[in-house]
Amino acid sequence: MSGPGCPTRCCSFPAVQKRLPVLRWLPRYSLAWLQLDVIAGATVGLTVVPQALAYAEVAGLPVQYGLYSSFMGCFVYCLLGTAKDVTLGPTAIMSLLVSSYAFHDPVYAVLLTFLSGCVQLAMGLLRLGFLLDFISCPVIKGFTSAASITISFNQVKNILGLQGVPRQFFLQVYETLRRIGETRAGDAVLGLSCLLALTGLGAMKSGLGRAAGAEPLCTRVSYCIVWTSATARNALVVLCAGLLAYSFQVMGCQPFTLTGRIPRGLPAFRVPLFSKVTHNGTVPFSRMVQDMGAGLAVVPLMGLLETVAIAKAFASQNDYRIEPNQELLAMGLTNLLGSFVSSYPVTGSFGRTAVNAQTGVCTPAGGLITGALVLLSLAFLTSFFYYIPKAALAAVIICAVTPMFDAAIFRTLWRVKRLDLVPLCVTFLLCFWEVQYGIVAGVLVSGLLLLYAIARPPMKVSTQGELVVQPGSSLHFPAAEYLRDTVCKHLQAAPTPGSVVLDCRHVSSVDYTAVLGLAELLHELRKQGLALTLCGLQDDVLRTLLAAELQEFEHFSSWQVAGETGPAAQCASPGIGRSGCSELTCQEEEM
Amino acid sequence: MSGPGCPTRCCSFPAVQKRLPVLRWLPRYSLAWLQLDVIAGATVGLTVVPQALAYAEVAGLPVQYGLYSSFMGCFVYCLLGTAKDVTLGPTAIMSLLVSSYAFHDPVYAVLLTFLSGCVQLAMGLLRLGFLLDFISCPVIKGFTSAASITISFNQVKNILGLQGVPRQFFLQVYETLRRIGETRAGDAVLGLSCLLALTGLGAMKSGLGRAAGAEPLCTRVSYCIVWTSATARNALVVLCAGLLAYSFQVMGCQPFTLTGRIPRGLPAFRVPLFSKVTHNGTVPFSRMVQDMGAGLAVVPLMGLLETVAIAKAFASQNDYRIEPNQELLAMGLTNLLGSFVSSYPVTGSFGRTAVNAQTGVCTPAGGLITGALVLLSLAFLTSFFYYIPKAALAAVIICAVTPMFDAAIFRTLWRVKRLDLVPLCVTFLLCFWEVQYGIVAGVLVSGLLLLYAIARPPMKVSTQGELVVQPGSSLHFPAAEYLRDTVCKHLQAAPTPGSVVLDCRHVSSVDYTAVLGLAELLHELRKQGLALTLCGLQDDVLRTLLAAELQEFEHFSSWQVAGETGPAAQCASPGIGRSGCSELTCQEEEM
Repeated sequence: MSGPGCPTRCCSFPAVQKRLPVLRWLPRYSLAWLQLDVIAGATVGLTVVPQALAYAEVAGLPVQYGLYSSFMGCFVYCLLGTAKDVTLGPTAIMSLLVSSYAFHDPVYAVLLTFLSGCVQLAMGLLRLGFLLDFISCPVIKGFTSAASITISFNQVKNILGLQGVPRQFFLQVYETLRRIGETRAGDAVLGLSCLLALTGLGAMKSGLGRAAGAEPLCTRVSYCIVWTSATARNALVVLCAGLLAYSFQVMGCQPFTLTGRIPRGLPAFRVPLFSKVTHNGTVPFSRMVQDMGAGLAVVPLMGLLETVAIAKAFASQNDYRIEPNQELLAMGLTNLLGSFVSSYPVTGSFGRTAVNAQTGVCTPAGGLITGALVLLSLAFLTSFFYYIPKAALAAVIICAVTPMFDAAIFRTLWRVKRLDLVPLCVTFLLCFWEVQYGIVAGVLVSGLLLLYAIARPPMKVSTQGELVVQPGSSLHFPAAEYLRDTVCKHLQAAPTPGSVVLDCRHVSSVDYTAVLGLAELLHELRKQGLALTLCGLQDDVLRTLLAAELQEFEHFSSWQVAGETGPAAQCASPGIGRSGCSELTCQEEEM
Repeated sequence: MSGPGCPTRCCSFPAVQKRLPVLRWLPRYSLAWLQLDVIAGATVGLTVVPQALAYAEVAGLPVQYGLYSSFMGCFVYCLLGTAKDVTLGPTAIMSLLVSSYAFHDPVYAVLLTFLSGCVQLAMGLLRLGFLLDFISCPVIKGFTSAASITISFNQVKNILGLQGVPRQFFLQVYETLRRIGETRAGDAVLGLSCLLALTGLGAMKSGLGRAAGAEPLCTRVSYCIVWTSATARNALVVLCAGLLAYSFQVMGCQPFTLTGRIPRGLPAFRVPLFSKVTHNGTVPFSRMVQDMGAGLAVVPLMGLLETVAIAKAFASQNDYRIEPNQELLAMGLTNLLGSFVSSYPVTGSFGRTAVNAQTGVCTPAGGLITGALVLLSLAFLTSFFYYIPKAALAAVIICAVTPMFDAAIFRTLWRVKRLDLVPLCVTFLLCFWEVQYGIVAGVLVSGLLLLYAIARPPMKVSTQGELVVQPGSSLHFPAAEYLRDTVCKHLQAAPTPGSVVLDCRHVSSVDYTAVLGLAELLHELRKQGLALTLCGLQDDVLRTLLAAELQEFEHFSSWQVAGETGPAAQCASPGIGRSGCSELTCQEEEM
């Protein structure tokens, strides 16, 4: 990949390779890779089918929409993706967002996919991937932790077999607890058994070492069986639960709540609907866009965030680099084309990406197998999905999202950086109210903390002999007044003879308002018979200050030089570059 | 005044003095002060009466509202103000804002005053005066320059005697130019003569030196006459124009557009109306608040900004310090009480404050005289105001606002700091469309520039021998990824044997996301067989990094020490404080 340092012409082969990463690995594709890709693709396929059915439930859509959303990403990412491990498809968090913004209505969901795809494509072409930098880790952790709780709790009603529980978290908790007596025994027993089985298989998987080649055949075969059943545990559990439900159905009694009828076959390829016909008349496009509101920013951005976070994690583990803007293009195109096959918005899935990586995928071509498996399921298996108990799917989701809850982050932040607990807690708590409020509030709060850091930079002050003030960072307009106040306050507390020294070694830039503040400070000190001496100015800052033509502006390379020459000496030429004067002296005087 | 450093108990005498600054100067009040205060108060009174009538016109309100707004500030500020020179009252900028937000309707204007007062009082009690720090100088300059043009042009129609010209700037320019043929000769001649007279008297004033005591009596008397007529030039010009109009009226012809009938007497003291009765029914409070919208934030904040900017300018000139939160309380109470006497929102007036200071006011007691003069005018002079030609008032306004246009700021910023031209131009241009958009956009743009500076801190990189990267400022979350990219990009361009050194001397704080970024960088470099060595860590940063328990985290007081000891040596105890190692070495290696 060519770095940002070396520009490539837009039609050169490296430039095309950059936009179509498939060209990088296809020429080198080998049979060995194919073998591993097929195994990984099939394994991911066995995971995605039950997850897709379950996440559609989280998104509040008919279950087939989960499958409709699961194949386009596999094909598009194979051509455009930069990370070999990432698989795009429905995820828990995106499903939660879709349930907020699409009002449990497929027409809204598909339009949201189309528009999110357009937004992501536009962001990718405008190279806006840097916007991700403004979502800090505490905000992400707060959001994912809260989401894991709300999504898990959202499934408790399916485990208990309760119907008609409201979507809003607090109402849901209240209603679920109030109606806990109405629990259906069949659903509860099945759900808890599935949870137990999934947890057990998951623990087995993580306890499993790699099979060494030197072991006897039977050991290797049994290892293989255990590994496969642990890796495809979602499919296995859902299959067993389905068979059980089918047996009961054949026997004429049904203790489980079932998924129910699913339209058979592939989704039609058609342009998404841009208006919605209801019995009250037509809802026009503009009204639908207005209804989705902030979702049109939150969904594309969170989609990007999830994909890039996952891609980066695996890129770092497997030693390759990804390009956020290219990921945006891949995801944008996936959503755009996905909306033609009734997909809801998709993004990178952490769980399935991990399965992909662990199975040893070599290129994004593994996605082709996954996609084909989903299409086959849609074409031939939908009638079998009728018998899948909802409690089993609920167990799949709960096991998938529980690891996202990170209790340790609260303790870690308390130890490392307490101030970061503020955006974390704001995001975490508000996400229970509404996901979007939590994220937006978290981003705003962390932005305000940044601005606060600029407005009140740390000031080291030494009052021994001369008053020496050393700002800890650059001086921008919100700090202009603060600097003046700090100097004046210390002068009031301990009047100094001679001059005041401003040690600017950490100031890498100043803006015009800060320069004006300095000019006012100079003026004020002059009236008190004091001189203001600046020392340790960096080249850029010095240039700005000289351009401002401040009256009686004195500067030295270090304040020791200032002391030796006396405040009356004025240094007309830039003082920087005079070596031989120790910059350490100032440091030792600091309080 | 007690500084923020020494807390005062809330009921102690200094604490009461802090809230009621009148207690500081009243015990020391003397006859000499009284004499000067009376002269200054009267002079300001002669300025405020014609200005009040004119500014009411800018605000789109009946002229008496200008006078209703001019006395409460004088009395309240006398008790609560911290700056001896400041006079509160109607100003050009505030009138412009009122015309935007109060829809030329006194009921809205008075409610806006009441609510602005409440907001300002609340801000003062919550000590939110620091919010001012986030309005940068380029935004203020852009706003005042644009305001001086729009306000001046707004008066051109009165000079030309045109009626029914729309308020919006661009429409106004178009309409005024289109209808320039309809100019009324009387108004135009009078307006231009008044402009000429005011400019001449203003120039005379600034050319006038101080009268020396040793000069003969007749010189001193003539000096005194010239000084008085130059200082009270607004009143003089308006008086002459009024007399002229009266003579024409007596002669039975009237070439001028007159101010017209003004209700006589003091305004009633009554609670402001919280709803408005129209012929279409009642507009409820909630609707009125919604209509005023952003005005409820912009008006209090701009009011504060104007007062504090003026107070600071004169405090610096006359050697005293002001307290923004106390100014907020004074202004908030002025507006709150003002709304009971039908005032529109007031703030500190630059022109009248300058007159006050020049006349030699000693304490805010001068305001009592000014207030009394305004009340007397309301009680006895309103019938004379009938004859004041609008063109004369227009000339007063144009002369008052023209100096606010600062053409030099564009050149200065180009020379000193080009980036600051962006918020300046955005504010300046958008203010012609709508004042509030200009200010809000300017504040947002300058905030985004700040965030950009945080997200992309300057990085000095040296690739001679080891790769040394030196961030120019603190590391916060938006820069975490950038730091990692910078290191990786340079490693790709010029692979380095041995270790990578991160020189953190300018890093005064890191947040958790940046720590995570460092951890990932450590991990990534370790996989490439490279070590990452941090040097020059400040105490706070070191403490944070140690608390994060990064794996294989190495740090040294300077990177020379790191080079001598070799990358394998790990420094478990804090390396800061080891003196003897030159910090200059790193600087000399920088590119």
